[in-house]
Amino acid sequence: MPLDIGVLVSGRGSNLEAILDSIAHGRITGARVSVVVSSASGVRAVDVARRFGVDTVVLDAASLRLSRQEYDDLLAEQLARKGISQSDGLVVLAGFDRILGAGFVNKFAGRLINVHPALLPSFKGLHAQRQAVEYGVKVSGCTVHFVVADVDAGPIILQKAVEVKDDDDEESLSERILRAEHEALPQAIQMFATGRLKVNGRRVVVA
Amino acid sequence: MPLDIGVLVSGRGSNLEAILDSIAHGRITGARVSVVVSSASGVRAVDVARRFGVDTVVLDAASLRLSRQEYDDLLAEQLARKGISQSDGLVVLAGFDRILGAGFVNKFAGRLINVHPALLPSFKGLHAQRQAVEYGVKVSGCTVHFVVADVDAGPIILQKAVEVKDDDDEESLSERILRAEHEALPQAIQMFATGRLKVNGRRVVVA
Repeated sequence: MPLDIGVLVSGRGSNLEAILDSIAHGRITGARVSVVVSSASGVRAVDVARRFGVDTVVLDAASLRLSRQEYDDLLAEQLARKGISQSDGLVVLAGFDRILGAGFVNKFAGRLINVHPALLPSFKGLHAQRQAVEYGVKVSGCTVHFVVADVDAGPIILQKAVEVKDDDDEESLSERILRAEHEALPQAIQMFATGRLKVNGRRVVVA
Repeated sequence: MPLDIGVLVSGRGSNLEAILDSIAHGRITGARVSVVVSSASGVRAVDVARRFGVDTVVLDAASLRLSRQEYDDLLAEQLARKGISQSDGLVVLAGFDRILGAGFVNKFAGRLINVHPALLPSFKGLHAQRQAVEYGVKVSGCTVHFVVADVDAGPIILQKAVEVKDDDDEESLSERILRAEHEALPQAIQMFATGRLKVNGRRVVVA
């Protein structure tokens, strides 16, 4: 049975596209995207999913007006319908703009990964690229990590460095980091799908 | 007149050696190491300096028993004798194990640089390589930066990334980062010596 992946999105879905493209071209094997859940309606990510023939669920946070707990429960239920649970499957945050509660995160511990647009532990939280530009670093990048309840603090699966140029602004740096994300996230998924990731405390070892 | 550089050391002096070697081979131009000040006697860095015919001053912190202010004043005096002051020259911290007081740092503002064995702002302070291994990052590196009173927080001149391997320990990662330091520190000095560094708030622009 292939690994069932649920991808959570909120925006243009370029990382989703990179994942689907990697599956289509055999760079990710033994896995399929079984459902895409979007926290917003009318976003490009939903179109990307449909173009690849993937089932989509829109849980529009703005109109649903649910508590975090209720939203997270609904999300877990939608994932479970596609075989993604605490014992099976993988949940990938690909530009998902909601903070997930500790209940959801703990339930999916070891099966929930995120890509962050900085070399963690530098520049946690929102607007990581802007933080990097304002700090004046010369190297930034992206981090794929397991999600834990503490934001952007989970065990790191892989990181890719990119140069920060003297004339970069938030937008130009974001674009360069995004290209690194499009490589890193599918690579991390492939490592997970082939069972090569071993978590040892804070360190992730690739078998 | 060439730029007069004072290099402050405390240990094996491999970064000092990289600087002297870069000058000898023309990778740093228009600059000379005019004095090496060591905070400890009997260290290899002093032998390195002598081998290159550079004047050395040992200000042995352990035996001098001076206050920080007194030590820093003595250090500034020794540098001044070689033409390194708040208006001339460059002070390079190359594995110097003492924290310099705010008075010294502010006096040499814009003329005092350090190399730190991590991609700042990650892993400030002591044992940066051990911090990186324990955190489980997959990319680390080194940072050459101007020194400000806040430790490891000054404007960044350049950074070089290195891979962290799954089987790295503090020692093996330190060696890999040190090789990056040996490239980065001479490059930064050459940028300074040729007047190409412009500090704009937190950002350093290379002209």
